[in-house]
Order: sequence, then C-alpha cells, then structure tokens
Amino acid sequence: MLTIADVTEIGIGMLGYAFMGKAHANALKKMAYMTWPPPLEPKLVGIAGRNAEAVQEAATRYGFEYATQDWRDLVADDRIGLFDNSGPNSLHAEPTIAAAEAGKHVVCEKPLGRDAAESYDIWQRVAATGVKHLCAFNYRFVPAVRLAREMVEAGELGEVRHFRGRYLQDWGDDTSLDTWRFDPQAAGSGALGDLMTHVVDLARFLNGEIESVQGFAHTFLAGRNVDDAVEAAVQFANGSVGTLEATRFAHGHRNAFQWELNGTKGSLIFDMERLNELQVFRADGDRARGFKTVLVSEQTHPFWEYWWPPGHIIGWGDTFMHELHHLLRCIADDTDVEPYGATFEDGYRASEICDAIVRSGESGAREPITFR
Amino acid sequence: MLTIADVTEIGIGMLGYAFMGKAHANALKKMAYMTWPPPLEPKLVGIAGRNAEAVQEAATRYGFEYATQDWRDLVADDRIGLFDNSGPNSLHAEPTIAAAEAGKHVVCEKPLGRDAAESYDIWQRVAATGVKHLCAFNYRFVPAVRLAREMVEAGELGEVRHFRGRYLQDWGDDTSLDTWRFDPQAAGSGALGDLMTHVVDLARFLNGEIESVQGFAHTFLAGRNVDDAVEAAVQFANGSVGTLEATRFAHGHRNAFQWELNGTKGSLIFDMERLNELQVFRADGDRARGFKTVLVSEQTHPFWEYWWPPGHIIGWGDTFMHELHHLLRCIADDTDVEPYGATFEDGYRASEICDAIVRSGESGAREPITFR
Amino acid sequence: MLTIADVTEIGIGMLGYAFMGKAHANALKKMAYMTWPPPLEPKLVGIAGRNAEAVQEAATRYGFEYATQDWRDLVADDRIGLFDNSGPNSLHAEPTIAAAEAGKHVVCEKPLGRDAAESYDIWQRVAATGVKHLCAFNYRFVPAVRLAREMVEAGELGEVRHFRGRYLQDWGDDTSLDTWRFDPQAAGSGALGDLMTHVVDLARFLNGEIESVQGFAHTFLAGRNVDDAVEAAVQFANGSVGTLEATRFAHGHRNAFQWELNGTKGSLIFDMERLNELQVFRADGDRARGFKTVLVSEQTHPFWEYWWPPGHIIGWGDTFMHELHHLLRCIADDTDVEPYGATFEDGYRASEICDAIVRSGESGAREPITFR
Amino acid sequence: MLTIADVTEIGIGMLGYAFMGKAHANALKKMAYMTWPPPLEPKLVGIAGRNAEAVQEAATRYGFEYATQDWRDLVADDRIGLFDNSGPNSLHAEPTIAAAEAGKHVVCEKPLGRDAAESYDIWQRVAATGVKHLCAFNYRFVPAVRLAREMVEAGELGEVRHFRGRYLQDWGDDTSLDTWRFDPQAAGSGALGDLMTHVVDLARFLNGEIESVQGFAHTFLAGRNVDDAVEAAVQFANGSVGTLEATRFAHGHRNAFQWELNGTKGSLIFDMERLNELQVFRADGDRARGFKTVLVSEQTHPFWEYWWPPGHIIGWGDTFMHELHHLLRCIADDTDVEPYGATFEDGYRASEICDAIVRSGESGAREPITFR
Repeated sequence: MLTIADVTEIGIGMLGYAFMGKAHANALKKMAYMTWPPPLEPKLVGIAGRNAEAVQEAATRYGFEYATQDWRDLVADDRIGLFDNSGPNSLHAEPTIAAAEAGKHVVCEKPLGRDAAESYDIWQRVAATGVKHLCAFNYRFVPAVRLAREMVEAGELGEVRHFRGRYLQDWGDDTSLDTWRFDPQAAGSGALGDLMTHVVDLARFLNGEIESVQGFAHTFLAGRNVDDAVEAAVQFANGSVGTLEATRFAHGHRNAFQWELNGTKGSLIFDMERLNELQVFRADGDRARGFKTVLVSEQTHPFWEYWWPPGHIIGWGDTFMHELHHLLRCIADDTDVEPYGATFEDGYRASEICDAIVRSGESGAREPITFR
Repeated sequence: MLTIADVTEIGIGMLGYAFMGKAHANALKKMAYMTWPPPLEPKLVGIAGRNAEAVQEAATRYGFEYATQDWRDLVADDRIGLFDNSGPNSLHAEPTIAAAEAGKHVVCEKPLGRDAAESYDIWQRVAATGVKHLCAFNYRFVPAVRLAREMVEAGELGEVRHFRGRYLQDWGDDTSLDTWRFDPQAAGSGALGDLMTHVVDLARFLNGEIESVQGFAHTFLAGRNVDDAVEAAVQFANGSVGTLEATRFAHGHRNAFQWELNGTKGSLIFDMERLNELQVFRADGDRARGFKTVLVSEQTHPFWEYWWPPGHIIGWGDTFMHELHHLLRCIADDTDVEPYGATFEDGYRASEICDAIVRSGESGAREPITFR
Repeated sequence: MLTIADVTEIGIGMLGYAFMGKAHANALKKMAYMTWPPPLEPKLVGIAGRNAEAVQEAATRYGFEYATQDWRDLVADDRIGLFDNSGPNSLHAEPTIAAAEAGKHVVCEKPLGRDAAESYDIWQRVAATGVKHLCAFNYRFVPAVRLAREMVEAGELGEVRHFRGRYLQDWGDDTSLDTWRFDPQAAGSGALGDLMTHVVDLARFLNGEIESVQGFAHTFLAGRNVDDAVEAAVQFANGSVGTLEATRFAHGHRNAFQWELNGTKGSLIFDMERLNELQVFRADGDRARGFKTVLVSEQTHPFWEYWWPPGHIIGWGDTFMHELHHLLRCIADDTDVEPYGATFEDGYRASEICDAIVRSGESGAREPITFR
Repeated sequence: MLTIADVTEIGIGMLGYAFMGKAHANALKKMAYMTWPPPLEPKLVGIAGRNAEAVQEAATRYGFEYATQDWRDLVADDRIGLFDNSGPNSLHAEPTIAAAEAGKHVVCEKPLGRDAAESYDIWQRVAATGVKHLCAFNYRFVPAVRLAREMVEAGELGEVRHFRGRYLQDWGDDTSLDTWRFDPQAAGSGALGDLMTHVVDLARFLNGEIESVQGFAHTFLAGRNVDDAVEAAVQFANGSVGTLEATRFAHGHRNAFQWELNGTKGSLIFDMERLNELQVFRADGDRARGFKTVLVSEQTHPFWEYWWPPGHIIGWGDTFMHELHHLLRCIADDTDVEPYGATFEDGYRASEICDAIVRSGESGAREPITFR
C-alpha cells in the first residue's frame, strides 16, 4: 500500500493569480489525488502578484502558505523547487530567468517572450542553468492531440501532405475590455502571441518544422495597438503545405482551435471546442469510408488512466493537470521534457516563426525560417 | 478580503471509494477553491469501505483523516456533518438511514433503493429526521441541463408536446466484467436502476410528472440476472408523450444519455457525450431557422461563474462539484434542496416509475403511475 | 452502341398530380437518361386528377399525352402497362385493384390502404391478378438505407440488439393548412399512416418482423380528427427490442426520419435530413473507435452507378428514380419486387402493425402482431 | 392555364458529353418541368464530341437530335440559340468565341481559359458580340450559397472581417487515373483551375474583390505536370482578410468545398458535402448563442419554389438546373447575368487571381491583384 510518505514533495512558487494562475493551481491540487501516486507531491508554498489584497485572497483560496507582491521572494525561497510563471507576457523573462538561475525548475506560460529575441534570451539563459524548463503549450496535453501525435509517429497517416490550423476566437470586437492583452508593452502582440503561437506549436508538434511562411498580421480596429488576426500560407520541412490562421474576430467561435492533417494513409481533424473528440479517416479500403468521431476516453487512450470510464469526458482545465504532471515526472525521474512537452526551445521557435509572419507581411516577401 | 476563517467547515464521511467515491471526493476537494468562497468548507473526516487496504489508500489519496471498514464509525463520528453514500445499491438503505437518524445530512447515489419499496422506506425514514437529503442525480447539474430547465420554466418552449430520452451504453456484452452491477442482490436491477433512473429523473426534472407507461425490461444474455435494456412509451401529466429507453447494448455509445424536448415554441436536444452543448430551436420566424449548437459556457450560463472564459469546456466529473456545492449551500443557508436538486422523494419517484415499466412488461398492460 | 430502338417502352398512367405526382413524374423522366439504358423506356401516356384545369396543366408540364378527370380512362387504356397511383389514400383501393385486374402492373403510394383491412384487401385482390405490385416505400431506395440493408445481410452488425426509429416533422401545429391529410375519410389516419408506416417498413426491411407492440396514437389538437403522434415500445422476432415514434409536432425537424441499429458487431445511424450519410460503428478493436460518417456516394455504393463522382450528393427526389427503376427492371425481367422493393404484402403488414399500436393505446394491452 | 404553346423554345448545342455534359443535359431536361413554366423551353438540337460512337450514344441518351464530331456544326446550326460548352479546358476558347460570334448565347464551364490571358481573350471577344455569357460557376446556385449572398447583401453579417475558403478533394494520389485533368495542355493547371477558381469565385461572390495574395501552387508527385494544391493568404478590398486553399490530396474529403464568413454581426459556415445546410451565427445577444444548422429548404429560401416541402433535400446536380434556368431567364427577358450569375468577366477575374497566386509562389512576393 502506498502511503503519503512514499511521495516526495516539491515546493511550488507561482507568479500570477488570474486566469492562468487559477488553471495552474487547480492542476497542481487535482494532480495530487487524480494521478495516484503523483510523481511528486506539489506543495503550494508561495504566490506572487501585483495587488496585495488579490494575491492574499488567492493564497487563501488555493492554499499557498504565503502571498507576496514581490516575485523575488519566491526566487529566494529555498523551499520552492518549481517556479510556475503564470503572469503576463512582460513578466516572463526576468522572473523566469532569475528562478532558473536560483536553481529552480521552471514552467512559463506562452508566449515565452514577447518576441523572438526575448524568447531566445529566456531559452538560452535558462537552458544554461540545467533546470527543467517547460513552455506551457498545454494543448499538447489534450488527449486527442497526444493520440494524434502517437498516430503520426506510428505512421498511421503515411506521408503528410497538409496541415491546416486556425485558432478562432471572437472577443476582439469588445473595446470595453480592460486587459493587458491589448497592451503592446505587456503582451508584445495580440492574436499572434496569444493564439498563433498555439497554432505554430501544434503544427510543429504534429507535423515537424516549418520552412517558410508567406502572410501577415492585421489590425482591424483603429487605435488598437496589437494585431487582431494573422494569416499565413506555409511550407513544412517534410514537404507538406498548408495554412495557419489566428484571429480574435471570428464571431460565434469562442475557443475554436481547429486543425487538420492529411496524409497518404489517412487524415485527422480536431476542434478544441470538442476537445474530447478526434476525427479519424483511414484510407483502408473499407467500403464504408469516412471520418470516425473518436471519443478519446478509452483506457488505452493518452492520460485516460487518471480519469473515468469511457465516454465520461474531461474539461479544458484538465489539460493543465496532464501538462504539470508530465513536468513533475520529468523532474522526479530526471528525464527530458521533450518530445511530448514543449521546452523553452519550442517556445522560442514558435516565436521565431510568428515573427517571420509579421516580417512577411511588412516586406511582402516569403520568409524562410532560420533559427538562431 | 475573505479569509479562511470566514468559511465554516463541514465534516464529510464517505461510504465507498470506487468510481463514485472518486467522483465525489474530487468534487468536494475542487469545490473548496473553484467556487469561492464555498458555502461550507468540506473537511474530509472519514471514509469507509470493505477492503481494508483499499480504503486506507483511498483515505491517503484523497486526504481523509481516517479509513474504516465499518460505516457505523462514520455514523458515530460527531465531527461528520454530511454522510456521502457512494457505495453499491445494497448499501444505500441502512447506512443512509442510520446517518440521518444520527442527525447528519445525507447524499446518496442513485438509484436510491433497489426497488420502489426500499426507496420509499429510505425517503420516509430520512425525511422524518429533518436533515437535508439529496439523491445524486448529478445530471441535473450539467450546465446545459440546468439551462434547459430554466428555458422550460421561462416558457421559452411553449407547451411541451414531446420528451424522448434514451441512455445508451455498450459494455453489457462484456461478460468478463466482475462488477456488482450484474449482481441482483447488490444492484437490484441492471440498466433499469443504473441508467433508466437517470432518464426518468431528467424527464421529470424537465417535463414534469409521468402519468402512465407501456413497456418492458429485457435481458439479452442467458445467465444474466439483471435486465440489459428497458423500453417504454409514456404519457406525461402535462399532455405530452414520448419514449424512454435505457440499454447497455448499444455499440458505439459509451455514455450517450440523449434527450429531446419539443414544444410549441421550440425544441431542445442534448447528448451527454457532448455535455457542454445544448441544441436549441426557436420557432421565432427567422428565415434562417434551425437548431443552434449552444456551447453552454457563457458567464450568463448556469454554474459558469466558477469556471473559465467562454468556450473552455468542463468535464463530466465537474457536474458533481455543482451538485455537492448546491447541497452545501442548502445546508449552510437552510434552504430547500429542490427544485434544482433531487431529494429522496425524487429518488423514490424515479424508482416507482421504473418498477411500473417492469410491471408493464410482465403484465402487458399500461401501468398508471401512482405514488405511495 | 445502344440505340433507342433497343429499349422497349412501357406506357404509364398516373393518378394524382400533386406532391407525389411530381415526385413520380420526375423520377420516370429522369430515369430514361440517368440510368442508361433504362430497363424500359417510360412513356407518359395519361394522367388523371379531380381538377380539370390542374390535371391538364400537369399533363402539359410533364409531357403526358392526355389528361382526364376519370381514372377509369387510364384503366381502359391498353397502351398503359404501369398504373402509378400517387393519389390520396382514399383513392388507393379501387383504382389500384381495377388497374391490376385490367392486367396493368401497379405502384401505389403508402399507406397502401387506410387501415389494415383495406390494405389486406388491396394486396389480396392485386396479388391474385399476377401483376407486379410495389408499395412506394421509397426510403428503401435511399442509397444509405440500401447500404445498411446490405451490411445487415452480410452479417456486419452481428446479432441485432436494438432498432429505434422515429419520424419527426413539425407542421402539425399549422391549423391553417387545407390538406386531405387531416381528413380522416381521405387519409384514414394522421402521423400513423403518413409517417409511422415508413418507420415500420424500414424497421422490417432492416431488422425483420415485429412480434409485439405496446404504445398508442395521440392527438394534441382539439378538433383534429386524425392522430398527431404515435409512440411504441416493440419486440422483434429476432430478439431485439426498441422504440418507434412518429409525430408532426417536433419543432425544428422538417423531415427527420431517424433510425438506429445496434448489433453485437456494430451499429448504424441514419437521418433522412442528411440522406447521403450513414453513421457506421464497427466493434473491430481499433483503438480509434467511433462512428464513421460515411458519405454514401462511392462507385461501390448502391445506385451510385447512375450518378456523379464521389461526394457529389443526390436529393430526396432521386430516391423515387431508384424505386421506379427497380420496378421497371422487375417488369422487364419478370423478377420479384422483393426483397429490396416493398410489395403490397409489405404495405399490408405495415398497416397491420400500425393498427396494432392504435389498439394497444385503446386497450392498454400489449398487442402481439398476427398477420391475416 | 398555361399551354406549351406559351413557352418559347431555345435550341441547345452542347460540346462535351462526359461528366459536365451529363450534368448540363440533366439540368436542361429537368428544368422544363421542375420550373414551371420555364423561361424558355430547352430543345436539345445537337451535341458534339471527339468519339463518334460515344457522342452518338449521348445524343440518343439525352435526346439530342443529332451528334457530330465537329463542334463547328453546332456553330453553323441556326436552330441553336445557346451554345453550352461542357468540354475540356483546351476546348473552351475557340468554340465559345466562334459560337458567340455566330450570335449564339454561350455558357462555358470553368475555368474560362487555361490562364488569365486566355480567359481575358475569351471574355473580350465574347463580350464584343453582345450575346449573353455565363461562366459555369454553378456553386453560386446552391440555395445555401445564394441565401448567404442575400444575407450579406442585407447587411445581416455587418462588416465582414474574414473569409476562409478551401476546396478539399482526395483523388490526386491515384496515378492510375487517365484524365485530361492531369494534362497541362488540356487542363492548363491542376487544382488551381479545377478547384481554386471555385474558391476564388465564391470569395468574390460573397465578399467582394481580392486586393492581394501571398501564396503558392505546389505539386506533390514526381512526374505530375500540373499543380496538386494551392495555398494563399489574402486581403480583400473591403478590409477583410483570410486564407484560400485548394487540394486534391486531402484524404477523406470527396468534395469538401468549405468556406466561412465572419462579420461584426454574425458568421456563416458552409460545406458542399452538406450542400443543403448553412451554419448561421447571429450576434444578437440571445443567451442561447451558437451556430444554427439551417436546412435550406424552406419556401422562402432561394430556388425552393421549384422543389419539395421543407426538409426534402436536393442534390448537387440540381444546382445546374438553377444555373441554366437563370441563364434562360436572362436570355428570355434580356436581363443581366450578373450579379447572381458569373459572367465571362468573372471567369477572367478568377483566372487573374489564380495566376497571381502562382506568381507569388514563384517570386515569393505579395502579388497585388490588377485586372487588365
């Protein structure tokens, strides 16, 4: 019988208590009993945030031992083994690097930096410390996405011909929103860093490296200082081609991160709004041919060992539990975060490709992708 | 600012640590921070189960202070204010009644009893104690189901003409399964108590009382001692008519609890495998007429205040959080569990209707529904 | 090279020029070139109808040589080899029997008669003449339905456990409609003869004979003299069970004839509003399990030899071409209309089962199905 | 009462008897009675094709008075008022121009010419004659597409932000196919002229002119002399942006011409494989928000006056009837083919945009669209 004494603790220090802070805190708390035994027992030590009252309430709510307005307190706290950066984009670089240099493992929300240069710097400086680093592209940890990756790896799609991905949301028209996401200093960019990085990351995760892009970023609203939408035609290193899109102006789509892969042996289709499903086509000669709607909830499916009987679906928030569980497993066993987790190198590469789309829009020219 | 001192604790004693135990424990733990502030802070005191090692591991895993093989220990524990019966059907009656008679509030999994008589007895004896009682028809707490109820109540469907409900699963063919669910003594019935009670409960929740049934329970497999499927044509007190079905033999359907309402002003369609969605038809004269696929995840939608931005869907397990949150709210405020929660009376009524279908199958006759 | 001289003509006499008349005329005209060579070349000789002006216009429109107000003119016309009865239900018996007794092959719209007795009489008297007879259950000639039948016949579903069928329409609330379909003398019944006969016919076509029914017909509107909806729980001779439903009061559904089959090896789902699609589940152990959306439009699919490249879908009206083509093939080759076409015996059997549901509603008792 | 004498005939001369010939012949024959009265009665006079036996059989099959191997016979035939060019792309220019210069109205399949220069020449020379000319972009005549256009025109979408269109087929991998569509001389291009012209035409039809493109054409198979896929990011004159794609290498998609419009007031989604449906989102503040699945089959919907009761869907082939009916109406009434029909100018413009994508791929540069 497993007793709690058998599980080593890891102290967590978190920066940020809003949308992503809630998602990460929930994941860490839920992991402790839903994945049993957890690789490490997350102990919520400290949480940092700008607003004193709000960060204290978050500490109370999620059970952190203390709250602070200075993230340096977390960096200085020896009990903290994992620094979880769920803060706004402008607070990704300095605290994350400082935490890593203090010997803490780090997870940082996407986009890693506000542009490729900043992302590169974060990656290089953190990698130099030797800690584990994970860029929180949580959609790699959707069961259907992992299943897709496994199918691609196993050759079930044959040679891939196309990847088309688009992340469609519809809140960009709401000018009443007071969010750092419209502030270029805090966010770095608009749909580009927020949504297109996800598209690029899954494109790379499922279909390998991108070789060139032709496209542009676009801003619809006068006075808006970040991009609202991004459009691109792309070529992959494996010879496949496709389109990438991200927008905050697609009415009716709340969180429609949709992608499709077409290969010589089959195809896959996915939509984040139905994240428990994967559409699978097999060119197997069956007279009854068509896309299967696979409810990714079988005992043989990725991550499903932690959950319920088949057909009892999970939620968007649960993908964070898979992600942070993976990181704790890598820390506990000293194994690589990649290939299933995104490292800071992946975070940087997504930024480099996103910046190339912006440059293509400015110059009109096809931009080959060159990594530093 | 809210501090933890502002939230009163309630001690939880749980019977059962398997499928339902996991679902309830997760709900209670998650509630404490996802619904903030929770009506009462659930404190996991004790958990009871047959297997000493397994129940001890469950206590460790979920954080109960102690484990016991005797549920009477929970009944006798004064620190426990809520007795949560997640055990098999044969263990519903005695422990639940004992807990209530010891002054504890009670929640009991469905079906309440193994037949109408046992259900009636549980209800009557528990109601006599004055404690809060909730029969865990958790599907009332799916946001789409609650939204449907609110739309019906607001008259948005007009006069209802039809309710058709079916709960389709597909594991009944697996004779290798070793589960109490095939044991008539432990379960009382098969698809009837397991699935049809859910169908009947939502039929009543959304469309009011059932007046008569014509149908039957059926067993496909030789040697199977419980029913495998149930079929019925029904009449409702409001003049509407429809069909009810439950089966464990519908290949391809893992957890397809599907229902539909047709009214003079509109229609609703639901499928539990896409539990975040509600199909809504409005007979509003719009030239572009059709069923809307509503992603029930807006800030204005039921329960969504606890969750994420629109489009970031929740899971099946999360419905238990809504349910137990409702119960704790009723306990904290001393308000009625009904109409949104199912009481033990609702548990009894579902059993009575289920038994009537069985009788109809045996006699061949239409069975009017008469409650004791 | 085929020349027109190689195809024998068959003279057509049609009764009725409204909805069904248009559907049949279109089918006969289109068949001549879409199925090449046609088994027989339909030659539109005469058309009969009540309203002199309207029937003359129909003759002009569709190219019949003459119009008449007296169907007896068609019966007496030796050039007519096939009598096509597309008239209202009250005009099914006498003209059809007369035509058959005059030696003409006959096709008659469903329901065959207005009740089981009339249907039986039509069948018996027509069968005695030895002509070919087809009851126009055209949905047997939907490619997806025929594909389903072929899959069932080939054992691809294994042993069938369930059939559930429902025909949902939503025009019953429109009391302004002036149609013979609400007139009990002309129609015999409401949703029962109009829609439930289709459900019963496909239930029999796909799953074999029905053994017993429990259910009822129901009328919602005061002053309505025919039934509005029919509900039943049923048992099949092959041991499977299910529900049957027909209604004109399901808002949002224009022509939703939906059915599902569940077997030990797989399942099929169909909806007439997407008549080019069949949902196919195979219990084949594929890790990626789920229902396939099969676009029934491959060269290997039923009837598709007459049409377009895959994915170029056909319409509801085209099912009549398949049906009448089948009948002409049977006439040309002197082969049996069954099993793929419905004979008048099938028309009678559907009526017998429909009447049994009505009787069950009146008596409250299970009605075993006994054919005369 | 209408008699046949009231409808003027128009003689048809058709070039081509294969896929498109069948589609056009069916449309012309069906129109005569399904649209009643037709604007002009199509009289099938002559049909031309390369293979003597095949063209004679086609004449017999469809009822043309004569067959010929020389299209000049049709041009010379005074009884022919409409020249219908359903031949391969290399036979578009000369016969169409000759027919127009002989005073015949002309309809020509898409792409108009094999490149922009040829398309321009056809347009200019035909326009100079003053005859009616229609480029057979039949998808403008899908009821759902026309409904979309009407909604856009009525301002129901507000200001459009995005158009994304893709035409996905999956037969490009089949190297055994012997078709002129892989022959650069006969076809001019691959997916570009065959599929992307459709995407571009509906983009323009629904969202107005395209201003610039960035993208490329791509060939997957060694030895293939035409493009297999085309990818582009585009900007529209109205300020909206999006992606366009066409491919013959998307396994599982037989005829998936999918497009989406997002505007400030709503969105529309369409898929040709479900051509009777339009997905409609309205940002109308309804708490129950989402995309409606509109079955475009109401009496108030475009073209539906010719068909059946609601919900009785039509097929892909029927769009040609709408298209040619429109042309005959324009001829009969001497009205403009545009805006609902595509003229040869539209055919040329689609070619110009397609060629610009190819140039963008070759140069890597954004190509502004400039019409000659």
